[in-house]
Amino acid sequence: MKLATLRSPSSRDGNLVIVSRDLRHAVRVPDIAATLQQALDDWSRTEALLRSRAEALEAGTLEDAFDFDPAAAAAPLPRAYQWCDGSAYLSHAELVRRARNAEMPQSLYHDPLIYQGGGDRMAGPRDPILIADEAWGIDLEAEIAVITDDVPMGVSADEAARHILLVTILNDVSLRNLIPSELAKGFGFFQSKPATAFAAVAVTPDELGDAWDGRKLALPLRSWVNDRWLGEPNGGHDMNFDFAALIAHAAKSRELGAGTIVGSGTVSNRDRAVGSSCLAEVRMLETIDSGKPETQFLRFGDRVKIDMTDVAGASIFGTIEQTVVRYEPAG
Amino acid sequence: MKLATLRSPSSRDGNLVIVSRDLRHAVRVPDIAATLQQALDDWSRTEALLRSRAEALEAGTLEDAFDFDPAAAAAPLPRAYQWCDGSAYLSHAELVRRARNAEMPQSLYHDPLIYQGGGDRMAGPRDPILIADEAWGIDLEAEIAVITDDVPMGVSADEAARHILLVTILNDVSLRNLIPSELAKGFGFFQSKPATAFAAVAVTPDELGDAWDGRKLALPLRSWVNDRWLGEPNGGHDMNFDFAALIAHAAKSRELGAGTIVGSGTVSNRDRAVGSSCLAEVRMLETIDSGKPETQFLRFGDRVKIDMTDVAGASIFGTIEQTVVRYEPAG
Repeated sequence: MKLATLRSPSSRDGNLVIVSRDLRHAVRVPDIAATLQQALDDWSRTEALLRSRAEALEAGTLEDAFDFDPAAAAAPLPRAYQWCDGSAYLSHAELVRRARNAEMPQSLYHDPLIYQGGGDRMAGPRDPILIADEAWGIDLEAEIAVITDDVPMGVSADEAARHILLVTILNDVSLRNLIPSELAKGFGFFQSKPATAFAAVAVTPDELGDAWDGRKLALPLRSWVNDRWLGEPNGGHDMNFDFAALIAHAAKSRELGAGTIVGSGTVSNRDRAVGSSCLAEVRMLETIDSGKPETQFLRFGDRVKIDMTDVAGASIFGTIEQTVVRYEPAG
Repeated sequence: MKLATLRSPSSRDGNLVIVSRDLRHAVRVPDIAATLQQALDDWSRTEALLRSRAEALEAGTLEDAFDFDPAAAAAPLPRAYQWCDGSAYLSHAELVRRARNAEMPQSLYHDPLIYQGGGDRMAGPRDPILIADEAWGIDLEAEIAVITDDVPMGVSADEAARHILLVTILNDVSLRNLIPSELAKGFGFFQSKPATAFAAVAVTPDELGDAWDGRKLALPLRSWVNDRWLGEPNGGHDMNFDFAALIAHAAKSRELGAGTIVGSGTVSNRDRAVGSSCLAEVRMLETIDSGKPETQFLRFGDRVKIDMTDVAGASIFGTIEQTVVRYEPAG
């Protein structure tokens, strides 16, 4: 089952829709749940109803189905109460920390790292990347994420895996030049992580077939900047902490509410032939090769594209396609 | 106007109520907004309606008014999309960092420090402090917070002050013994900040009279542990960064959504006679005096009380009264 949220002038949380497997058709489901958060809050009731409707959508028997327009989509959760993002691919962590001359603590090799993100303004798949100043070092980070139901405090990783309801992909936009001074203050990211953008569609794990082993997603995550290929690391390779481990880490001292989004961190493989999912890695590899970075961070007008396809080549979640735009305050 | 949220079996976000100035009476307002978040989402419409109803409640003319029971209250926002907490009282930051032998970066004296909190499970004023392990070093942190409407990116501090809709107090529970290793990983707090608890009532600034100057709240914030006085530092003294500055800092690179909660950080004064708002400060002062801390962190069964009264001695927000309880997973 594939779920999305269409923007709505009357609701900040949009309208929940079921999307067909081929992403061509959709149907609203106000009789089941008005929003994705409502569906997740009451998943034991809504899941079966949504799945039944999804089957009818695939069968083409719904008179109120319509063409799905990804440009009309918000993030699946336009506002999220809990957005926490891991750093599960340590080859990324090693390169990025080397890039800013930061230490790689040994604890990171056995203790998952998660940062607390802010979920009040999630961007949709075609929304601009709104940034006030190019000099902040604008970067993309292509990631995979899961969305959970209610997770008890102290859950084991094996139990945590059973709390994964949905899977999606995202662009964790980062402001590289704000990070060093912000992290130096000791309390983690805030200004250096502007609005995160999500693919239009979140899917139940059964849509992923053999690529999903219950804890990670073994498919290439492809990124481009201005149509230039950036990379296609496989989400199933070199993931030092799988989603079950990340959820268990996040729930050590707190319950997680339904609709919690847990990100993988930038997908990164040790095989450099597959490229990268962010520009910071590219710049560090250039520095290692030739003494200095050649690739620039994103500028106003630059375009970012992120996608993941199934083995038949069809987009699973819909494409994230964003343009970097200078933020102009309204009024 | 005073607002609160009553727990509801049918809604995770509870039911919005208006509370009388003396905290004795309340009235539900489903015809205006079902939840506080809904009221904040549409404040330009709901504020006048709520204020009119609040006047009628004070006048005693509402037939559906009932006795307000703080034990039935959730946090004003039982789930919040954006909870960010400052560290605005540097006398606290200096002591706590000294306690864990951490450096006090010079940047903290001119650049506000904010950490991104998680808002999916806010505790109510009488909810237990649920912790799995006493050895984690359980501490209270008494704070003041404001709740905003939509804040544009890049807002100035002067403009930011106009986005403050509500004021409340809170207990930012902290797990002191998890903090050093977590912060050493570089991405800020996660496991060391379990569920934050809020007073029952959030008030519009006009309820605060001369104590509110538009940017900070100049009244003593009182804390007790097991009925032992812990402190009563004044929120208007030694606040190095006022709420306007904290909001402007938080909005530098992102829009803030309606319902954003911005915390002050632990209220702390340089005048030691007024005591402290957390045990970490007490322990550091003991260490300075006598070489080692005498006061223990909280244990299961310990009781925490936090309150702020007006100049006439009446509680403004209702008392936070929590007991530390060992977390037992359900089922």
